[in-house]
Amino acid sequence: MTYEPIDYLPYDFANRRHIGPSPEEMAEMFAALGIDSLDQLIVETVPEDIRWDGSLDWGKALSEREVIHRLHEVAQKNKVLVSLIGQGYHGTVTPPAIQRNILENPAWYTAYTPYQPEISQGRLEALLNYQTMVCDLTGLPVANASLLDEATACAEAMTMAQRVAKSKSKAFFVDESCHPQNIAVMKTRAEPLGIEVIVGAPDDLDAAAVFGAIFQYPGTHGHLRDFTPEMEALHAAGAVGVVSADPMALCLLKEPGAMGADIAVGSTQRFGVPVGYGGPHAAYMACRDDMKRAMPGRIVGISIDSHGNKAYRLALQTREQHIRREKATSNVCTAQALLAVMAGFYAVFHGPKGLRAIAQRIHRKTARLAKGLEAAGFRIEPKAFFDTITVDVGLLQRGVLQAAVQQGLNLRKVGKTKVGITLDERTRPQTIEAVWRAFGLVQKDDPAQSEYRLPEALLRQTEYLQHEVFHMNRAETEMMRYMRRLADRDLALDRAMIPLGSCTMKLNAAVEMMPVSWREFSMIHPYVPKDQARGYAELIDDLSAKLCQITGYDGFSMQPNSGAQGEYAGLLAIRDWQRARGEGQRDVCLIPVNAHGTNPASAHMVGWKVVAVKCDAQGSIDLNDFRAKAEKHADALAACMITYPSTHGVFEETVKQVCSITHEHGGQVYIDGANMNAMVGLSRPGDLGGDVSHLNLHKTFCIPHGGGGPGMGPIGVKAHLIPHLPGNPNGGDGAVSAAAFGSPSLLPISWSYCLMMGGKGLTQATRVAILNANYIATRLEGAFDVLYRGGEGRVAHECILDVRPFEKTAGVTVEDIAKRLMDAGFHAPTMSWPVAGTLMVEPTESETKAELDRFCDAMLAIREEIRAIEDGRMDRAVNPLKMAPHTMEDLVRDWDRPYSREEGCFPKGAFRVDKYWPPVNRVDNVYGDRHLICTCPPMEDIAEAAE
Amino acid sequence: MTYEPIDYLPYDFANRRHIGPSPEEMAEMFAALGIDSLDQLIVETVPEDIRWDGSLDWGKALSEREVIHRLHEVAQKNKVLVSLIGQGYHGTVTPPAIQRNILENPAWYTAYTPYQPEISQGRLEALLNYQTMVCDLTGLPVANASLLDEATACAEAMTMAQRVAKSKSKAFFVDESCHPQNIAVMKTRAEPLGIEVIVGAPDDLDAAAVFGAIFQYPGTHGHLRDFTPEMEALHAAGAVGVVSADPMALCLLKEPGAMGADIAVGSTQRFGVPVGYGGPHAAYMACRDDMKRAMPGRIVGISIDSHGNKAYRLALQTREQHIRREKATSNVCTAQALLAVMAGFYAVFHGPKGLRAIAQRIHRKTARLAKGLEAAGFRIEPKAFFDTITVDVGLLQRGVLQAAVQQGLNLRKVGKTKVGITLDERTRPQTIEAVWRAFGLVQKDDPAQSEYRLPEALLRQTEYLQHEVFHMNRAETEMMRYMRRLADRDLALDRAMIPLGSCTMKLNAAVEMMPVSWREFSMIHPYVPKDQARGYAELIDDLSAKLCQITGYDGFSMQPNSGAQGEYAGLLAIRDWQRARGEGQRDVCLIPVNAHGTNPASAHMVGWKVVAVKCDAQGSIDLNDFRAKAEKHADALAACMITYPSTHGVFEETVKQVCSITHEHGGQVYIDGANMNAMVGLSRPGDLGGDVSHLNLHKTFCIPHGGGGPGMGPIGVKAHLIPHLPGNPNGGDGAVSAAAFGSPSLLPISWSYCLMMGGKGLTQATRVAILNANYIATRLEGAFDVLYRGGEGRVAHECILDVRPFEKTAGVTVEDIAKRLMDAGFHAPTMSWPVAGTLMVEPTESETKAELDRFCDAMLAIREEIRAIEDGRMDRAVNPLKMAPHTMEDLVRDWDRPYSREEGCFPKGAFRVDKYWPPVNRVDNVYGDRHLICTCPPMEDIAEAAE
Repeated sequence: MTYEPIDYLPYDFANRRHIGPSPEEMAEMFAALGIDSLDQLIVETVPEDIRWDGSLDWGKALSEREVIHRLHEVAQKNKVLVSLIGQGYHGTVTPPAIQRNILENPAWYTAYTPYQPEISQGRLEALLNYQTMVCDLTGLPVANASLLDEATACAEAMTMAQRVAKSKSKAFFVDESCHPQNIAVMKTRAEPLGIEVIVGAPDDLDAAAVFGAIFQYPGTHGHLRDFTPEMEALHAAGAVGVVSADPMALCLLKEPGAMGADIAVGSTQRFGVPVGYGGPHAAYMACRDDMKRAMPGRIVGISIDSHGNKAYRLALQTREQHIRREKATSNVCTAQALLAVMAGFYAVFHGPKGLRAIAQRIHRKTARLAKGLEAAGFRIEPKAFFDTITVDVGLLQRGVLQAAVQQGLNLRKVGKTKVGITLDERTRPQTIEAVWRAFGLVQKDDPAQSEYRLPEALLRQTEYLQHEVFHMNRAETEMMRYMRRLADRDLALDRAMIPLGSCTMKLNAAVEMMPVSWREFSMIHPYVPKDQARGYAELIDDLSAKLCQITGYDGFSMQPNSGAQGEYAGLLAIRDWQRARGEGQRDVCLIPVNAHGTNPASAHMVGWKVVAVKCDAQGSIDLNDFRAKAEKHADALAACMITYPSTHGVFEETVKQVCSITHEHGGQVYIDGANMNAMVGLSRPGDLGGDVSHLNLHKTFCIPHGGGGPGMGPIGVKAHLIPHLPGNPNGGDGAVSAAAFGSPSLLPISWSYCLMMGGKGLTQATRVAILNANYIATRLEGAFDVLYRGGEGRVAHECILDVRPFEKTAGVTVEDIAKRLMDAGFHAPTMSWPVAGTLMVEPTESETKAELDRFCDAMLAIREEIRAIEDGRMDRAVNPLKMAPHTMEDLVRDWDRPYSREEGCFPKGAFRVDKYWPPVNRVDNVYGDRHLICTCPPMEDIAEAAE
Repeated sequence: MTYEPIDYLPYDFANRRHIGPSPEEMAEMFAALGIDSLDQLIVETVPEDIRWDGSLDWGKALSEREVIHRLHEVAQKNKVLVSLIGQGYHGTVTPPAIQRNILENPAWYTAYTPYQPEISQGRLEALLNYQTMVCDLTGLPVANASLLDEATACAEAMTMAQRVAKSKSKAFFVDESCHPQNIAVMKTRAEPLGIEVIVGAPDDLDAAAVFGAIFQYPGTHGHLRDFTPEMEALHAAGAVGVVSADPMALCLLKEPGAMGADIAVGSTQRFGVPVGYGGPHAAYMACRDDMKRAMPGRIVGISIDSHGNKAYRLALQTREQHIRREKATSNVCTAQALLAVMAGFYAVFHGPKGLRAIAQRIHRKTARLAKGLEAAGFRIEPKAFFDTITVDVGLLQRGVLQAAVQQGLNLRKVGKTKVGITLDERTRPQTIEAVWRAFGLVQKDDPAQSEYRLPEALLRQTEYLQHEVFHMNRAETEMMRYMRRLADRDLALDRAMIPLGSCTMKLNAAVEMMPVSWREFSMIHPYVPKDQARGYAELIDDLSAKLCQITGYDGFSMQPNSGAQGEYAGLLAIRDWQRARGEGQRDVCLIPVNAHGTNPASAHMVGWKVVAVKCDAQGSIDLNDFRAKAEKHADALAACMITYPSTHGVFEETVKQVCSITHEHGGQVYIDGANMNAMVGLSRPGDLGGDVSHLNLHKTFCIPHGGGGPGMGPIGVKAHLIPHLPGNPNGGDGAVSAAAFGSPSLLPISWSYCLMMGGKGLTQATRVAILNANYIATRLEGAFDVLYRGGEGRVAHECILDVRPFEKTAGVTVEDIAKRLMDAGFHAPTMSWPVAGTLMVEPTESETKAELDRFCDAMLAIREEIRAIEDGRMDRAVNPLKMAPHTMEDLVRDWDRPYSREEGCFPKGAFRVDKYWPPVNRVDNVYGDRHLICTCPPMEDIAEAAE
């Protein structure tokens, strides 16, 4: 027997688990590319002067088991107290069936945004359930499929109000009872847009002086008020009324729609999604029907497929950021799909009766708590409440708060003399008694007491969740099967490569997902005292340090909870810095035409003018045009925003020049980190000349896409910008999200990825991502033109396939190819972006050569089908491409097509036994937009569609 | 708004999650049955004099959240130290991808035993991988798909050796180096069978005096020896040689096959399955080809389907217990499928190179540890070892063991002067240093040292795991997809009802599964000091108390790790009690002809003669025959074994008489608990006259079936039998399993089920199980005859459908119906048991009325298809029943059948969009047995089969 060499590391996560191609496969790929080594490929691909000469190093890479050990150590440093702080974050019970079958199931968490509806019917249905829940609870007819958090939802509502208001006022009224973080984020958002935020009591509202107003319901300190008079006054003045409402309270209380509100927003966190130190959770938005086209975010709607069967899809996509570039005033394109799905399932799980009962229980507990305090002589406000009361304790505030901590409770500090208490689904009699003890009272809670102290006039008069999905049998057996059926309709990373350019759909390792469910990470309220979150602090500090090393920046902010938020926060930092040094006039932002759509939107949001810069035939920035525009706007130049490597998938040689030209003309450089997976360990944006970048942790750093969110977009900055990073949303200025660290419960994912990869492993991942992309480009050579290549003929980590010629030669569109790939069991590459009519392919390092080959086989077979049409061997109208995707229904029906069932359903690349079948045929987009339905249809219609 | 009544409990697990039919559905079911209430049905179903007049009560039922809280409290009472005790149980690293995607995935854990191969191809493939691994590592050509634990596997090997040996000796030699628990269980097993166990050193083996011998490899104290001479001596004497070997050691050391061993057994626990305080884990068994028909347990083999495609199936099923009743000498029909799947995937995950590297690392660490001790002057044995060393510390034994505990370590107490240390995959340099500190040594471990102290002559000379599945790309992406593909091929409870009579496939709730993964339950070595397992003790005591209340017994033993084991342990208790009171001559066991096949097997195993008792036309015990036989054998009557309600699915009125007749004639009553799901809360075996019963926790108490194991078969006994319950396997007498509490890491499942249901909920579950069965019987009335009913025309919790007439009228067999149900997306009911040619349906309480209706619709449609054949409207040879199951392949091929694709593939009951497709057509059983292949075939064959 020969021993394995001592350096064979069986637990090597980077090389054995995360990186797809095996050493043997890599050797074959080198041969195909005509290279001797990966080193050679990198030399040919990454221009020398942008290469980093350092190397990432933070010691030995950890194994999966070691990383769990390390995470446990850190988790132990978080102290899990019972937080009754409220302020928009509440204890909740995640139904275990939902935790196991959704949150911890790769079929759900590895899915992509449902842009390809035919292979996304499951999560589209789940999101439609969620929208229906939102519409019902708020009493408004249209809802989107979630926003990032309640505070940004408030800000989005503000800007949406401005878009739709008849009033031309530039002022927006904010109820002083709004949660502090909501006010903070609205203020941040308002200022660059020239909106004046007036914070005041509803009684002081001057409706004629504003374009809109927002009210919190219940108020942050528990007050309840019927805003009907305010809504009437606003409407009379051509202004828009917004209510930010707790959906749990809406289970008992008059809904915003019934008050005449135009828009409702809020957080669905307490519908089964743990607080997680601030996120991720799904914020909701609903609005009146006539405002729907102004609503940000994604909306799931119902349409039909090519056989006329009902099919779900994303509706009104023309509103999305990637289309309206220069006019964008919202850059919210990320949703919190996975969390919205969970919240929707929570409503399905409990149904209206269960939700009402839960809300009542919460209320009754609060009533008992209040009564016990009042009986002892404490002054409680308000008199009528839902789940939140405020107690004036005078000089004893600190004493009560400390006593509470000793009882294992966090209460809320309100002003200098008051204490706030918010109860929730998890509150037990023991908890109530512990609160009393914090107030010096020793008494027993009596759960049999059932006083209601809701204001009579605000009791809800309408039913909700009447759709049958919310009345399905509540047996777990049935729920589990429903979740499985929906999951099975979708194609996610757990079944096949999702080769989406610029979206970096890489492995989300099981071990990385595990800590997300741990209570030490999931059950920390975002506003706990710092000493209760030492574990989070250690994790965040260490992750930040690593990201600094990776990017060449000096500081990081974890606050932005999406890539677009990161851009926004980064530009704000630049703007604030320029103002601080007296250059506040700078307001021009240079953006190349191939930029991500969020770039111009972000620039608009900070009040800048966007000046587009041309690209050359290679997709690179036209340096002459860039220089000319920088010179022309030298006095006003605020920044440029570039993506590196470019969105065309090449390492531009001129990037340093672009940066120095910008700096020479007084501007700052924003480098979009969307393509960071092509750079880690090889090149650092901070070295190239970047002043700020965001990283998409959900692209490069393994946070799963969750079917369209969560995301995380932290920003790295050079030292001079550090003082201008986002402020604390709970009492500071310049916050961009509701929680200081965005969606911190996701950070263990990215951190454990870094720890297990080690610096070498991360670098190798980048190199293999580039290898994989070049392998595809090489294998498809001759069949498809790769639109852009670098100097040595190499692409970066993705490549654009030009399929535009086939429209003329064979009548085949990019969409036909995308749908045909579904027959082979693939999600399509990115369609028509950044170049219309093309496909952008990004395989990532996680895919094996075998899977790349399966994809290439499928693409080459498609090319042969196109050739058959070109040659007249195949019908131009009825062919496998035009009829794609094929469903089981096609197979079982009579077959009158000029190609066989076999050819139609089993193109090259498709699995045979393990074939994935799209549940619907091609979806009709136009029909869906013409007949917008964004809540669950009557059950008989669904039954019809299903049969 | 109206408030929900205060008594609406949204978290009510029993009535809202576990029990399938909603109140509305139940009302409809009452109408269908012509009853007013569930009470009425129970009165009509359960004879009054067997009804229990008490009620189960242990306080308020807990919610899911409360049960997690309670489990946490208990878990905290277990102390997780690093156990280096060895003795067959080792620290291991469960790959997170396997934990999440197999152990925690309902698609795997809710599956049934793969008796229906067409809908079980995924787990059959996984088990074939496992068998291949076992064959390769042991160097023997045939392996089974797992046994219960290493100790019972040793005992099975002993009895198998007796079956195949040419030697007629009644003695069996046991190496004194065998693990104590292996020796204990072999002794227990041997005695009733008249086998003399000779424990001694291999040097003392007298091969001519035994029918076989077993050796431990490595020995329990670490010794390694080449057993080739012993094997040669045994063979020369016509005796059989068995080696119980650690599979991890076999990655480096000469394999049993190469030594000439006939049989190899062992535990695959350390292949990624946590110790879990003793189980569950998969024991393995492999043997020479000419012995395979004598091997106990299930064997997965390869056959072909009706299109000639390769298909997996259980081979040689005729060996199974349910066939060979009266001649059975093994009652092992339970395997540890889920754990075998995990172990097999561990091998796939690491491959031979990884396994060899892991084994080497373990060894090198042990060598370093030993060297450090030797350098300090300690005496180590043996000199050459794999992972276990023994240190003579003289009088300091207690001191060293205590010092170790203070270092967070458990070492093994060996004799009075020695300490044993076994290292494993989890051992870190810090662990080695901590061991040294326990010996008073402060020194640093140097991982760079790489001394090998394996005996040169025993180094392995052969390769293993050469099949391509063990060389698949090790990227997690690929592994995850492979696991998903296999899962998708199978039909488990997460997609449809599995209406298996006598198997009680009920909900395995997600929350019940959660604690199984907690380290406080999973990482406790079975032989830790008691004070480290106080949480387990509390849980086991409380569960036992509840089971006593449920059954009417006075004491429980958790040791049996399958139902059959429980029977065996129960009969042993009876036998021992009778011996103790001087009635050792009793050796006749009365068993009705409709008994579970394990009953006679168990009776044989305790050395009893089985006397069969007739049943009447209603399937009830023929009381006259019973009395006559009891009288006839009065002097020798040991016991009767009955099942209640009977295996025919009725509550027999005469059960108490049967018990008293038995008692009158000096016998004891064993009541098989397989049908306990029809009794909980309504009737108690202990009250009926039972002296002992086993409970199938994997049937009645929610432990999932795991695709064919794990199981748990604890026994309850009346007070007089308590002293005769199984003894401690680690140093006691009368043990039946390797660990004192069988498979304790499963017990949190059953305990949390009891806690969440509460006494009332458990009773209601029983009542609804009876309702569901009667609803099916009623809906199918007229179409199918229900073979047996009670006095009032009701069935118990299951019913037998007589489909025998259709063979004559339409040529349709019970198998045709079973396979046709697959087309509708159902697992077939139990086929041909207890009555040949019938179907036994048990829906359980967890199925909703909607699912019952879907099943009934499918059955009624099948009846219509039969009628069409009867009427000559459908071809007798080529019809949807005969051609079932239909696959996607059928659909895509040319269709030349006298019925349509639609009729063939979408019978009534089948989901449309969510259709489940069996991956293969009907499997040819005979072909597979004629050409037995039970290891992975060459890859090209698989590829062929797959395409």
